[in-house]
Amino acid sequence: MNQFPTTQIKITPLGGTPNVHDNMWVYESDNDIFIVDCGMGFPDEGVSGVDLTIPDISYLKDKQSKIRGFVVTHGHEDHIGGFPYIIPQMREGIPIYTSKLAAGFLKEKFREFRIDAKILNVVKDRQPIMLGDFEIKMIPVTHSVPDTKHLIIKTPMGNIYHGSDFKFDWTPVGQELPDIQSMTRAGAEGVVLLLSDCLRSEKAGYSLSEAIVEDSFEREFRGETNRVVVTTMSSNISRIQQALWVAKRNNRKVAFVGFSVERNVKVAAELGFLNIPPRLIVDKKKMFTLPKDEQCLIIAGSQGQMGSSLERIATGDHKSVKLDLGDKVIFSADPIPGNESNVYRLIDLLSTHGINVSYSDISSDLHVSGHASSMELMMLMAMTKPKYVIPTGGTHRHNIQYGKLAVKMGIPEDHILMPENQSIVIESGGIVHFGDPIDLKNVYVESGLITQDDAHILDRKMMFQEGAVVVVLGLHKAGGLKDLDIIPKGVNVQIDPVAMQTIKEQFATVMGAQDMTRDRLYSKDRISKEISRLFIEHIGKNPVVIPIIIEE
Amino acid sequence: MNQFPTTQIKITPLGGTPNVHDNMWVYESDNDIFIVDCGMGFPDEGVSGVDLTIPDISYLKDKQSKIRGFVVTHGHEDHIGGFPYIIPQMREGIPIYTSKLAAGFLKEKFREFRIDAKILNVVKDRQPIMLGDFEIKMIPVTHSVPDTKHLIIKTPMGNIYHGSDFKFDWTPVGQELPDIQSMTRAGAEGVVLLLSDCLRSEKAGYSLSEAIVEDSFEREFRGETNRVVVTTMSSNISRIQQALWVAKRNNRKVAFVGFSVERNVKVAAELGFLNIPPRLIVDKKKMFTLPKDEQCLIIAGSQGQMGSSLERIATGDHKSVKLDLGDKVIFSADPIPGNESNVYRLIDLLSTHGINVSYSDISSDLHVSGHASSMELMMLMAMTKPKYVIPTGGTHRHNIQYGKLAVKMGIPEDHILMPENQSIVIESGGIVHFGDPIDLKNVYVESGLITQDDAHILDRKMMFQEGAVVVVLGLHKAGGLKDLDIIPKGVNVQIDPVAMQTIKEQFATVMGAQDMTRDRLYSKDRISKEISRLFIEHIGKNPVVIPIIIEE
Repeated sequence: MNQFPTTQIKITPLGGTPNVHDNMWVYESDNDIFIVDCGMGFPDEGVSGVDLTIPDISYLKDKQSKIRGFVVTHGHEDHIGGFPYIIPQMREGIPIYTSKLAAGFLKEKFREFRIDAKILNVVKDRQPIMLGDFEIKMIPVTHSVPDTKHLIIKTPMGNIYHGSDFKFDWTPVGQELPDIQSMTRAGAEGVVLLLSDCLRSEKAGYSLSEAIVEDSFEREFRGETNRVVVTTMSSNISRIQQALWVAKRNNRKVAFVGFSVERNVKVAAELGFLNIPPRLIVDKKKMFTLPKDEQCLIIAGSQGQMGSSLERIATGDHKSVKLDLGDKVIFSADPIPGNESNVYRLIDLLSTHGINVSYSDISSDLHVSGHASSMELMMLMAMTKPKYVIPTGGTHRHNIQYGKLAVKMGIPEDHILMPENQSIVIESGGIVHFGDPIDLKNVYVESGLITQDDAHILDRKMMFQEGAVVVVLGLHKAGGLKDLDIIPKGVNVQIDPVAMQTIKEQFATVMGAQDMTRDRLYSKDRISKEISRLFIEHIGKNPVVIPIIIEE
Repeated sequence: MNQFPTTQIKITPLGGTPNVHDNMWVYESDNDIFIVDCGMGFPDEGVSGVDLTIPDISYLKDKQSKIRGFVVTHGHEDHIGGFPYIIPQMREGIPIYTSKLAAGFLKEKFREFRIDAKILNVVKDRQPIMLGDFEIKMIPVTHSVPDTKHLIIKTPMGNIYHGSDFKFDWTPVGQELPDIQSMTRAGAEGVVLLLSDCLRSEKAGYSLSEAIVEDSFEREFRGETNRVVVTTMSSNISRIQQALWVAKRNNRKVAFVGFSVERNVKVAAELGFLNIPPRLIVDKKKMFTLPKDEQCLIIAGSQGQMGSSLERIATGDHKSVKLDLGDKVIFSADPIPGNESNVYRLIDLLSTHGINVSYSDISSDLHVSGHASSMELMMLMAMTKPKYVIPTGGTHRHNIQYGKLAVKMGIPEDHILMPENQSIVIESGGIVHFGDPIDLKNVYVESGLITQDDAHILDRKMMFQEGAVVVVLGLHKAGGLKDLDIIPKGVNVQIDPVAMQTIKEQFATVMGAQDMTRDRLYSKDRISKEISRLFIEHIGKNPVVIPIIIEE
């Protein structure tokens, strides 16, 4: 404990609200900071050529010495994927506390990025982590990756329950039951603030148990005489476990295909989260020497990502795996919002090649969500009895629906907080209110490098919609127009070549009268505006203009 | 009948398979052609700056004199939206035969595009349309726009049943019951070939009746004290009818907002397909003078389209309609595949502004599909008893699922035809087989003009992903490199300014040795390749290169 007691606790989301990805929550007293999760995300539609997004940590820049550590709730990329980019920007040696499996995934990640894994600390359930003014306990919950935790955070201003991604699964596969004893005890001891997953707050009732998928797999494997392929999220170890059991019962060997699934399976098996029956796994090369009805492949790429193993197999670009007419591919995953087009394109492509595809639109029981539906979200409120709530990990509409559930649970409207680019402050006496706004920028990783600049991304978007046009003006020494070249790129001037001639003539007339030797910047601006005007008028397009002035 | 009997019947899809849009089917004997539908579509992801797509009619170029007419099945844009662009490319005066409502929609469309509406012919149900070797009868079916028809086509080579978009709705709203008498009679008389809607072939069971939505609206309107807004597809007259009834019963006046919904309502009401209760409709300006609990707005834009009325209202850009905190917006439409991001962005935006949004993810009964589910598709096969089938209006995966249903109905695998860029031929004796391949190009409407050129669209896509770079080379008279400017646009060279300097130096070294005065095209190609190589190596990007050579 610090000598001077803290005057308040501040909670600042640097990601994770109001969006699904880039989860990162800063807990801060006068003296200490600890951070929950450090995720990555994918950019919105309209942004291209970017690998991924990460949280904007400018807020932490002058607070490095206060940071006591990270606590990680689970091993999904939207909660751990930011570390390789964020860690090198932080004070050296900040420890990361997490569960066994998330630490295993992080260790692999750190090896790839040459980050020292010594900062990783595996913490047991309910064992207090002391980080300055904060005491944090991790308690087990169920989710679509094993070893997921909620956090009970003791602060000088009251207890906070950090309930990120979860569901209540009473028949989980290879996972512990949710620790409702700790949840209800936290509620009895008093919870000032509950941060809760809200992604499926729109859904009535309860989410289905992971265990139901085993029967679905059985139905899909039964009587099948060709190859069977299962694709799912590569971190969904429980799903992979069920696929292994079903393959074994149906006398099929299994091969894993794809970097992420091979890596995750290795880590999960080593740490005891995946139980691989003996003599089940074979190398993918050996697999193809077996009779077809003894083959089962577990392949990454259920989201239809370009360049993923399944996508390359579908396009015939995979060097070692080929599928044949009549083989079956089971999609055991729903498209993540935004991925619909990719997923359906992949299903269409596989269908074209005579592959027998099973997916949610045909059989809804091939996948269950890892997130709590509305009744489960209400259960968590009933157990923890929070004074205030913050929905997390959803977009606006999910936040709003969560708010409606909270109202049904008797939480007053003004105790339902949806911070957006701002902090939440807890004062003594458990008074919670909005704090200062903070300015969060988009941070992209592009070609492996971090960039905060949006201007070039906006240019790309404009060029996508409208094309570009290079205007080359040759000037006489005296300043008059010598020659003029207008070079459109991505603008179909073939539609109307006359219009192009008109633009050139009208532009020459207007600009010929200008002296462009004096103020270069002003002249370029004039050129851009005039070209824009003319292209809109004559071609109906507003291309990005790149003016080039050449003096004699 | 022609003097010389035809030797075969050829059916050629110019659109509508294997995709959902651009529906256009050419029926052809030795002497005559008639065409079913002439739709439009929207381009795939990865194509931007394009208004819409239309069928490629190159196939018809040298066959104009054979064309006896168009027959239109129903008034949806993916079946009639191509006409304004296709008609001016065709022989003058080709007649269009269709039902009353589709003709009404087309008439309005033709007025906008200054096309003579005299070519429109309204045909009664079951009244034969004689088009050379073909006799066509339209029979009523139910769908998400009233007055939708199936076609029974008599040809010298046997009868064809053209079953485009439909469902079997036994409690339709303001629509006739499906004419199953004609369907079964066609089956009894013998159907060589059934073309069938297949969009919902993935769905088990039966689609729900349109009539159920009235109860959903009642629940949503009941007890609401703020404004209620309903948004749906503007051609879904049955849905609008139910909204009107429910508004009336709940003591609300109704105003229509948006060009497409206002136009469609006007046409449908004039032709008797929409029954507007007296004194229910008010002008949108007057609407806002009423108490909030007496207001109901029916607004276009349920697909989240940029620039639609609802989108402009949500962004605050609509000049006459503003919504307030607590107003309710009911989405009575599901996102069309590909529109998910737009729709959810709109719902999020409305939610942010404190609008109470009801949509399918919360209440699944706010919308029902207008397409037949698998049992209905099988019913149509049972009624028409076809020898051969062609699934239409779906993508590959829908076609494949339809094929599985056909197999269940006893149709042999090799009688299930999925033509792709090729014709289907019926020979005497009812032998059906694949015909010659045809080369179908993408045809876009861009800034109101038709373009078949993809090159500039590909350039735009490349610039979106990778950016562009202008390379200006000044040459000495002798041919040597005088000066060099590299101007990136949409490439973030700020990330690594050193790399940019390196590129410039290495490029100057390589190109300085070249004589670029001789073969300009070759030189530009060399420049592009060298710049690409250097940008990939040093920046990790492969921008579109625009080389400019300036000689002294």
